Amino acid sequence: MSRIKVTFQPENRTVDAHPGEALIDVAARADLSISSLCGGQGVCGKCRVKIVRGLANSSSKILGFLDRKELEAGFRLACQTEITDQDVEIWIPPESRQGEEQILTTDQVVRYERPSSSAELPSAREIPYYQPLCRKYYVDLPPATITDNLSDLDRIYRELHKKILGNRLTTEFSCLVGLAQLLRENNWQATATVHLKDPDCPCIRAIEPGDTSARNYGVAIDVGTTTIVAQLVNLRNGEVLGVEGSMNQQARYGEDVISRMIFACSLDGLDPLKNAVTTTINTLVDSLVTGAGISHSDISCFVAAGNTTMSHLLLGLEPCAIRVEPYIPTANRFPPVKAADLGLRAHSNAVLHCLPCVSSYVGGDITSGVLASGISDQSRISALIDIGTNGEIVVGNNEWLVCCSASAGPAFEGGGTKCGMRATKGAIEKVRIRGAGVHYETIGGFGATGVCGSGLIDAIAELLMEHIIDQNGKFINFNHPRVQVVEEVPEFVIAPGTETESGDSVVVTEDDIGNLMKSKGAILAAMKTLLDNLGMGFNDLEQIYVAGGFGAHLNIEKSIVIGMLPDLPLERIRFIGNSSLGGARLTLLSSHAFQKAEAIAKQMTYFELSVHPGFMNEFVAALFLPHTQMELFPTVRERLQRRSEQAGEL
Amino acid sequence: MSRIKVTFQPENRTVDAHPGEALIDVAARADLSISSLCGGQGVCGKCRVKIVRGLANSSSKILGFLDRKELEAGFRLACQTEITDQDVEIWIPPESRQGEEQILTTDQVVRYERPSSSAELPSAREIPYYQPLCRKYYVDLPPATITDNLSDLDRIYRELHKKILGNRLTTEFSCLVGLAQLLRENNWQATATVHLKDPDCPCIRAIEPGDTSARNYGVAIDVGTTTIVAQLVNLRNGEVLGVEGSMNQQARYGEDVISRMIFACSLDGLDPLKNAVTTTINTLVDSLVTGAGISHSDISCFVAAGNTTMSHLLLGLEPCAIRVEPYIPTANRFPPVKAADLGLRAHSNAVLHCLPCVSSYVGGDITSGVLASGISDQSRISALIDIGTNGEIVVGNNEWLVCCSASAGPAFEGGGTKCGMRATKGAIEKVRIRGAGVHYETIGGFGATGVCGSGLIDAIAELLMEHIIDQNGKFINFNHPRVQVVEEVPEFVIAPGTETESGDSVVVTEDDIGNLMKSKGAILAAMKTLLDNLGMGFNDLEQIYVAGGFGAHLNIEKSIVIGMLPDLPLERIRFIGNSSLGGARLTLLSSHAFQKAEAIAKQMTYFELSVHPGFMNEFVAALFLPHTQMELFPTVRERLQRRSEQAGEL
Repeated sequence: MSRIKVTFQPENRTVDAHPGEALIDVAARADLSISSLCGGQGVCGKCRVKIVRGLANSSSKILGFLDRKELEAGFRLACQTEITDQDVEIWIPPESRQGEEQILTTDQVVRYERPSSSAELPSAREIPYYQPLCRKYYVDLPPATITDNLSDLDRIYRELHKKILGNRLTTEFSCLVGLAQLLRENNWQATATVHLKDPDCPCIRAIEPGDTSARNYGVAIDVGTTTIVAQLVNLRNGEVLGVEGSMNQQARYGEDVISRMIFACSLDGLDPLKNAVTTTINTLVDSLVTGAGISHSDISCFVAAGNTTMSHLLLGLEPCAIRVEPYIPTANRFPPVKAADLGLRAHSNAVLHCLPCVSSYVGGDITSGVLASGISDQSRISALIDIGTNGEIVVGNNEWLVCCSASAGPAFEGGGTKCGMRATKGAIEKVRIRGAGVHYETIGGFGATGVCGSGLIDAIAELLMEHIIDQNGKFINFNHPRVQVVEEVPEFVIAPGTETESGDSVVVTEDDIGNLMKSKGAILAAMKTLLDNLGMGFNDLEQIYVAGGFGAHLNIEKSIVIGMLPDLPLERIRFIGNSSLGGARLTLLSSHAFQKAEAIAKQMTYFELSVHPGFMNEFVAALFLPHTQMELFPTVRERLQRRSEQAGEL
Repeated sequence: MSRIKVTFQPENRTVDAHPGEALIDVAARADLSISSLCGGQGVCGKCRVKIVRGLANSSSKILGFLDRKELEAGFRLACQTEITDQDVEIWIPPESRQGEEQILTTDQVVRYERPSSSAELPSAREIPYYQPLCRKYYVDLPPATITDNLSDLDRIYRELHKKILGNRLTTEFSCLVGLAQLLRENNWQATATVHLKDPDCPCIRAIEPGDTSARNYGVAIDVGTTTIVAQLVNLRNGEVLGVEGSMNQQARYGEDVISRMIFACSLDGLDPLKNAVTTTINTLVDSLVTGAGISHSDISCFVAAGNTTMSHLLLGLEPCAIRVEPYIPTANRFPPVKAADLGLRAHSNAVLHCLPCVSSYVGGDITSGVLASGISDQSRISALIDIGTNGEIVVGNNEWLVCCSASAGPAFEGGGTKCGMRATKGAIEKVRIRGAGVHYETIGGFGATGVCGSGLIDAIAELLMEHIIDQNGKFINFNHPRVQVVEEVPEFVIAPGTETESGDSVVVTEDDIGNLMKSKGAILAAMKTLLDNLGMGFNDLEQIYVAGGFGAHLNIEKSIVIGMLPDLPLERIRFIGNSSLGGARLTLLSSHAFQKAEAIAKQMTYFELSVHPGFMNEFVAALFLPHTQMELFPTVRERLQRRSEQAGEL
């Protein structure tokens, strides 16, 4: 029986299969789990995949789950699709990945449509789907002879042209300096680093002696106001070799974006802020490089996603006009810049790309999140909620995108909270309360040192369900053994001092609850106001992607209980982790994805909440657990009633 | 009567005309003289011009002078073509310019065909014919408002897109630094410098405050082994503001290319050679800038034409592999380089382009010369002879180009000659001998200080015709009052010490004559060998363009008498001055011309004389005045006979 090759992307993993085998089974043999609630019966529709090359036979059951556009784009259900007699290449979208590693973004997928019209991208034909921004090509050149007497550069071009590159190849001048000697001293063997951000204008940015093609790494960076996270990616195969995060050292010049802008625009204020962020990144890169056992010079490319002000500060561009009316950035789309010119440690010719911003208040982090979530690829209407110091909400599909931004405060990132901390080791991320019993889990299983955003959400939901607090977030059960009052403020002890690293107990205070209620209220109110103005309700959202630096877990159910997320069926809400980082990684791995990000930034419309008086009413209505309009949260209402009845029975 | 606008290029000079007026008359009113031997009768065919926009009526007489291809390309005879009722744009090719200012190429013309297939250059539509490599656009931006809140960069793009640029506009990152402040402090008025070498990928390389668009200058440079010449060009209108030349300061490291290559490839030898050439150029630029009353920062672009080694040394690329078999340059096409990185004084973001080379032995100077001569634009077969330390000969047309190179020695540039000098002020450039009477003219009318190449050619031709020397170049008339013998070598006094600056007489010695005969012999032999191998004779050349640093004049007739140029009708041979400089200037003024130069470099085939034993025979045969095969020089033979008869009669 003939053996067919099936390749799964973005892992680029190929396995043999035989005709008639179901895709979902082939994927399993490749150690790739595809979601399936119905066990392959074709009735849950969770196992959507996309055929990017080749053909496969599908049953008519798929018609119930995929519209015409999606079918034309190559989407199928993996359980209802069989291998034929030809090789196929399959993309597994993130929403079809099986659950465990939900933090994701590390398993994000390059799954962009080929441009519909070849006029848009004339040489698209030559560009494979999976095309890192920067690629290394080893060339073993035939030595020059009197009859084969091309110049050194043309000799390199000739070899590169054999490897799918178009004919507009150019070279950064500095590559020529010393090239003659380099080739002759290294047996005519060299490696050219080609940047492909604009696939129509590929450019050689470095030529190194010998074969260094196995060492081509990129760094994706989420440049957050509070936290900076960097991910080291092997550009040859998309493998993530490490993730490191730390506080943004700019914090010493101001806690929030506004105070940093003020500092940056004071005399000689820009350089310290620029240096603080590059120093932070360098520290992360140093750790990543050491951890992976590579060299700085193996890094050929950076992609940074940050809000508009953070992007400006990283690039050394004054953010002053962003802060005052009419709020104008220097640029939303940034030209590539030599990483060395910014002071970043990498290959001397490495390039940094910033993901494009939409406006002063919608940055490259949101563009990146939309890209990572994939909402702009689907015909169904979905939402992305990115929860950080600001809560940003994007609603739309492959035809339109609208976004708004609400100040959520630092509560989700551990700020403004007595025992709050970021989602790092030792942070309590899960809490369960049953009567007097309190269970919690910490990140990494270490002794508790504090509570992070997801732990706080868990705790408040549990306190509400256990009638320890009321729907106003006020303590009502002072008899619970874990409830205590310190300086007239009631608080709940999640971890007593005997169980913590420091010996101090980890608590949630009534003030903490009040702060978190404001944060979650702002997010829900923003989403509701935006949807109202679009003539839509929560129920019109077929999928909600929740992103943010919550660590590995966010309990969706409990997020609904406290009213941070709308009361929709759980399967319609997915936590996708740090989507800003995820999108940056996608673009490192695909110049198509970068172009897609540019299209997303152009397409997105900003909805200014502050000019809509309705927002403030919605905000006030949302300062309740879960919400003053309980009819918006029917399942929570029902659960609260059931708990009351149970409590009554006892 | 309606007034029609007629614009002449490359001057971009527009005058009014009325329907029915002959083009040649309109040109005269515009102070542009077009060649016409027949006085506008349509019988000499000298007044070829090209209609690049609009229509005009021509008489059928033109059919006798223009073939179908030329007609399709828009060529007409100016005297036989009348204005109609619509505006027209006319290019006057260099060969149709009236004679006086023959030195140059300063009146060269950008007259390239639009690409025949739009596929070759997708956005050609948007690129005007006359498109300098670097253009300044003044933008008076509408200030940003809350409703018109584009980023600063997008605001500039929006204005630029109104001014014919395509939509692939990019920006050099450094332009963004400080941009916000620049715009706001200068009332939103700024000037963007856009580089257009690749018209498909225009790139903003500088943004300056206010309106600096009136100050956009380029420098064309002929980087010769012996001499460097630089020309300051106003990129707005093509006007030449000055030309300066000086010895290449590299001479201290070696007289010829080979010795400089050896020096460059010795330890730490490259930098001194690179610095010597950039210092020479900076000195020339300083003079030009001072002379024109402009500022260094007004210079936005350089184009350099040099032989392959000179190009490498200017760019700081080691020329070592050029010198040894298999003679390989680092590159023939060079990426643009920041002039400041080479140490050139100009705008900090100014760019230098080197014209493309063909191979180690055919450089950008020849590509430039072919471009300037226009031989690659015509269907008829022509030749370019560029006479310098090397004599380079190109034969071909718009379909093929073959070139060869012969060592001519320094005689034409004043080297290896007792009183030789370059063609600068005080050099004897014309000589006439009638009996005992000797007349000469010096460049600038100054007291004689020496004799340059053209003066030497004149002198030898006159000495031959006056029977003072014989056809072997040996003195035969020792009775002439100007003939003397110094240290056993006979010599002829052109200017006695009483007439010279130094008080020493300016002479031509028998050794000088011998040297020049070798030089001219090498050139003629090279041309003859090349033509023989192409199955052609001199007579198959419809036009010969002679280029070289002879100063303003080269007497074609006398060049034939000594056998440097073939014995063809005088109107088929034109002296076009420094064609390397002329081509560099053309490309400064037209990105199309630069692309044409790249096409020329690709198209040109190198013919290696040294492997053709026939060359040495031809060389020996040419060591005679004019040539041992007198039948090749029928008119010279006839004149010599007539002079002999006259002499016999006396």
